[in-house]
Amino acid sequence: MYSFRNDYSEGAHPKVLKALTETNLEQTQGYGLDPRCQKAADLIRVLCAAPDADVHFLVGGTQANLLTIEALTKPYEAVIAAHTGHIHVHETGAVEATGRKVLTVPSPDGKLTPAMIESVSELHSNEHQVKPAMAYVSNTTETGTVYSKAELTALRQCCDRHGLLLFLDGARLGSALACSDLTLGDYAALTDAFYIGGTKNGALFGEALVLPRPRADFRWYMKRRGAMLAKGRLLGVQFQALLEDGTFLDAARHANGLALRLRDGIAALGYSLPVESPSNQQFPVLPNAVVEGLLAMGYEFEVDHAVDDRHTLIRLVTSWATPEQAVENFLRDLAACTDPR
Amino acid sequence: MYSFRNDYSEGAHPKVLKALTETNLEQTQGYGLDPRCQKAADLIRVLCAAPDADVHFLVGGTQANLLTIEALTKPYEAVIAAHTGHIHVHETGAVEATGRKVLTVPSPDGKLTPAMIESVSELHSNEHQVKPAMAYVSNTTETGTVYSKAELTALRQCCDRHGLLLFLDGARLGSALACSDLTLGDYAALTDAFYIGGTKNGALFGEALVLPRPRADFRWYMKRRGAMLAKGRLLGVQFQALLEDGTFLDAARHANGLALRLRDGIAALGYSLPVESPSNQQFPVLPNAVVEGLLAMGYEFEVDHAVDDRHTLIRLVTSWATPEQAVENFLRDLAACTDPR
Amino acid sequence: MYSFRNDYSEGAHPKVLKALTETNLEQTQGYGLDPRCQKAADLIRVLCAAPDADVHFLVGGTQANLLTIEALTKPYEAVIAAHTGHIHVHETGAVEATGRKVLTVPSPDGKLTPAMIESVSELHSNEHQVKPAMAYVSNTTETGTVYSKAELTALRQCCDRHGLLLFLDGARLGSALACSDLTLGDYAALTDAFYIGGTKNGALFGEALVLPRPRADFRWYMKRRGAMLAKGRLLGVQFQALLEDGTFLDAARHANGLALRLRDGIAALGYSLPVESPSNQQFPVLPNAVVEGLLAMGYEFEVDHAVDDRHTLIRLVTSWATPEQAVENFLRDLAACTDPR
Amino acid sequence: MYSFRNDYSEGAHPKVLKALTETNLEQTQGYGLDPRCQKAADLIRVLCAAPDADVHFLVGGTQANLLTIEALTKPYEAVIAAHTGHIHVHETGAVEATGRKVLTVPSPDGKLTPAMIESVSELHSNEHQVKPAMAYVSNTTETGTVYSKAELTALRQCCDRHGLLLFLDGARLGSALACSDLTLGDYAALTDAFYIGGTKNGALFGEALVLPRPRADFRWYMKRRGAMLAKGRLLGVQFQALLEDGTFLDAARHANGLALRLRDGIAALGYSLPVESPSNQQFPVLPNAVVEGLLAMGYEFEVDHAVDDRHTLIRLVTSWATPEQAVENFLRDLAACTDPR
Repeated sequence: MYSFRNDYSEGAHPKVLKALTETNLEQTQGYGLDPRCQKAADLIRVLCAAPDADVHFLVGGTQANLLTIEALTKPYEAVIAAHTGHIHVHETGAVEATGRKVLTVPSPDGKLTPAMIESVSELHSNEHQVKPAMAYVSNTTETGTVYSKAELTALRQCCDRHGLLLFLDGARLGSALACSDLTLGDYAALTDAFYIGGTKNGALFGEALVLPRPRADFRWYMKRRGAMLAKGRLLGVQFQALLEDGTFLDAARHANGLALRLRDGIAALGYSLPVESPSNQQFPVLPNAVVEGLLAMGYEFEVDHAVDDRHTLIRLVTSWATPEQAVENFLRDLAACTDPR
Repeated sequence: MYSFRNDYSEGAHPKVLKALTETNLEQTQGYGLDPRCQKAADLIRVLCAAPDADVHFLVGGTQANLLTIEALTKPYEAVIAAHTGHIHVHETGAVEATGRKVLTVPSPDGKLTPAMIESVSELHSNEHQVKPAMAYVSNTTETGTVYSKAELTALRQCCDRHGLLLFLDGARLGSALACSDLTLGDYAALTDAFYIGGTKNGALFGEALVLPRPRADFRWYMKRRGAMLAKGRLLGVQFQALLEDGTFLDAARHANGLALRLRDGIAALGYSLPVESPSNQQFPVLPNAVVEGLLAMGYEFEVDHAVDDRHTLIRLVTSWATPEQAVENFLRDLAACTDPR
Repeated sequence: MYSFRNDYSEGAHPKVLKALTETNLEQTQGYGLDPRCQKAADLIRVLCAAPDADVHFLVGGTQANLLTIEALTKPYEAVIAAHTGHIHVHETGAVEATGRKVLTVPSPDGKLTPAMIESVSELHSNEHQVKPAMAYVSNTTETGTVYSKAELTALRQCCDRHGLLLFLDGARLGSALACSDLTLGDYAALTDAFYIGGTKNGALFGEALVLPRPRADFRWYMKRRGAMLAKGRLLGVQFQALLEDGTFLDAARHANGLALRLRDGIAALGYSLPVESPSNQQFPVLPNAVVEGLLAMGYEFEVDHAVDDRHTLIRLVTSWATPEQAVENFLRDLAACTDPR
Repeated sequence: MYSFRNDYSEGAHPKVLKALTETNLEQTQGYGLDPRCQKAADLIRVLCAAPDADVHFLVGGTQANLLTIEALTKPYEAVIAAHTGHIHVHETGAVEATGRKVLTVPSPDGKLTPAMIESVSELHSNEHQVKPAMAYVSNTTETGTVYSKAELTALRQCCDRHGLLLFLDGARLGSALACSDLTLGDYAALTDAFYIGGTKNGALFGEALVLPRPRADFRWYMKRRGAMLAKGRLLGVQFQALLEDGTFLDAARHANGLALRLRDGIAALGYSLPVESPSNQQFPVLPNAVVEGLLAMGYEFEVDHAVDDRHTLIRLVTSWATPEQAVENFLRDLAACTDPR
């Protein structure tokens, strides 16, 4: 039976594994100062149309989030996020562990809006309060929704008005790139920092952090938090493999496509998916008995929360590795679990 | 030309790469809760004769150091280390970044002794001073030296007398296992925490932290510092491959053997190696002209420091991947650089 | 004209000043280890019927909050508070500066309830999330409301069910003691930590933190955060003066009495006070023109926020030092500002 | 019997107490934004010939040290100090608690020299190490010695060459002002931050931190660490009282004079004072029997450390409050304890 639990349930895209194998015995300098990282960073700068950008390769998303926030803000400053933001909910206080406060606003769909930013900004005005300095958004969001170019541009303008930085968590940027009108160039132009998530889209691990305006001291922050990989070139090799020929986008398209197939198949069975997601995470509401039936068959997925006494919202995630047949089987088995009446 | 710069200049041992490839499309839970990590942890518990030990897989040494110190000490407590200790010199204040102070004692050979611990302990007695709570040692040390079982036992007894924990940084534990009388069982019996360094002995990356007495909350510390790998099973797969059939020890023996060949060949040419090292790091003193000659030929190594106006101490490191021929070539070229008189 | 801005707008109660003057040239040990602090601590233990309690004297409330939370929780743990909680809103991230997260729940009246605690607790279950470890309440609350003994007992029981500590911020404990059914003994019996706020009720400065269960290492936490007063006996002298003969409670009764006189006088003029406060803070809603009129006369008070385009909520605070005449004058002038129609 | 334990064993200079009493019922704004603090800050700017300087009033020295270091350096930066530096030895890791590392150099007399700074600077060159960013000195030092203007100027020039800030801990600045050629103007011209210690020279408590180049955000740092006194004007009142008419300098001269009388009397009895101190701390070496004799009589002082089996180094501290007679009595009793042979 298949696991729709997460997009990091498997290893690496075959192309990535091949590149790691082929370069395995090359001798290089450590800590990301090697030709492989250099080449991958150059490639990213080209793809982002950001010739001056700094690119740093990190192992995971929480690491990328805490480092970016720590390096770009002062101790007494704060980050504004939707209440669903990954840094607020699922990182065990990693941002607070750097001494920074996260200020949250309820968001119906996981997206942050200019109005939300303003509602927080205006409450913080003097030295008895933290000073909002950054807005944090994820694309795709934690609920599968996606920002449009117009929306991200409006956030940028709002941040400029309030002297805020804009940081975009791109743990699932691949999925977003494959289903929105935002390009890598747009992200580089509209944010102060964002990352291209490799872990959830084809890499063994790795997030490529892009800082459109270079900062000489970011590597000090990295090392200080144990976030500098000794064999740093592993990250360069993987991102080069994913980005040099479109594999990254293809992988995300594959995942999104199967997610939409899931969505449509589920809806066709009469179930609701309350949050409209165009990306590789889908959140259907199913009767508890159906959920139990699927689990009993061996399917794996995240049981998010009880909607009412008899219904549960679950999360289904697809990836570059999901076979089409797994999706079809799931829909078939879901139909079988579904009461005919 | 060959690089003797570091033992993490290459990728992974072929056996590790093979295991990663073979398991690539298995679907598992994330974050180290998968069967692969479980199996590797069980194997380590057996090898350590420590059936109750906690085993946590981490990506790198600085991460392992900062987490262990943060999790096992209180905010106002301090760690005692030799002045050469990696946490003091080469981790950009990662321990201080957790709010803990490192108290250092000058050490002629990189080793900590009971007398050194006592000289620090007796200076810290009240609430106006940090409270020493842990001794930190590395094996092999940062200068290539190695603790004997008698020495580590004496440290343990000293720590017990002063109410201190004993933490052993095992970034190069493989090399130490291959050239001292200490076994994995000894480390588990004599320390409160130690790790088996994979990065420098055959893995792509990875340190297996062993906590002989289990701690229910260590995973909270890991996640909070961004140190929980999403595809955690990558670590389990690698450690299983290295440890299940003796590959780990074989790899270290190979590295040590070539290092001793370097040492003997260098000494035979009349050069001194002031620190006696039985492990895979050797520190010869060479005339500046010879150092320049070797660099000009394309050899790579760490130029540690000037001994006097005309001589420099360099570091040569071998690994599981170093070919015997590279060592012989180096010795031949060193002889050629050496003035015949 | 009078300032109703805050209850720390003046110096010390005359009895306190007298005690400081009389003891000025006594020589004592520093840092709170003197006979004056000893005596004050003993007195507090008697008043609290808590013979084993630790008592620590601190200079201010933010200091007391950050230290208590840091000392009583682990790095990955979190504190649950009402969204109005002082630690969340008015301490510039002092709790986050210790690495701890504050989890908030909207509260209509500034009080925390068992249901609110449970709504947060049940969302935090694994190592990807902070672990709620403490509930934080203030008495009186930031909006002037007051917990009853039944309410605090219910919170205690809820905390016990969920393995949480209960910490009570007593910056305005005097005012609460003077208008609720909770005694010092109740606070000691029902909480894991609380403090008796001196700064806002007669002292030059000072908060007496009571830890019903002693903790040997609290002084290390104090010193490490710069919170150990060199001439510590100043705190002991003040608390002894305030507590030994009921001055503390008398001072609070005076403040509360005048606040209620303000409340009744304001209501009699037809203005609303949306939050029902029995304590020394009152929050009337006044027409903007009236607010401007009072400010123009020279009255000082906090302008909290705009209720609508034409009305503003202000805060009036009384203290042990407020003269009855100041209150009568204010009511007279408020009446004069008030449009007769 | 008299206590020579510390210069904060008593309360406040009578002039300070008088000023506090006279202003006790003035109503002012809190948190240091009142006319009293304004006036004291203006006075300090005049005395320092630094019209643009920021002046912040803090309660104690550890607070001043940790805040200045946190506010003026970045997380990965480090502070260079003599191994005797107060921040290294006697503040329970308060600087490390802000995440900053203290790098120490052995100093024979408690002073830092350009050569010491350079020996540390040259060892720290890349992102695997903390980055030295500030030199920390105390005047008077922890051993009673005093910097001359030439010495401080040389430190300034060294700091400029290495891109370092210079921070001077002035917990005993009064004593230094009274026995060296450095003026307040010199301190403002030569350092990036220094403070005028009130606690040890006439105030109840208080350190006036001077930042010659203003920093808009320092008050955020203060509040975040619980270092903003609610009744902030208490600090302004005290510093105005001490500085407006020379009381501060007079108090220090009194203390220094009696310390020199102690020194000369002790030396006349044949005892050595290994560190030459012109200031209010003296460190004689006495036979253990003599030390015990003095303690038995009821004298109080700090027993610093055993010099050998039979001798102990003690510390004697005088203050503005020390009566001349107490010194004469001590010398008489010391003579009596001294074996005639």
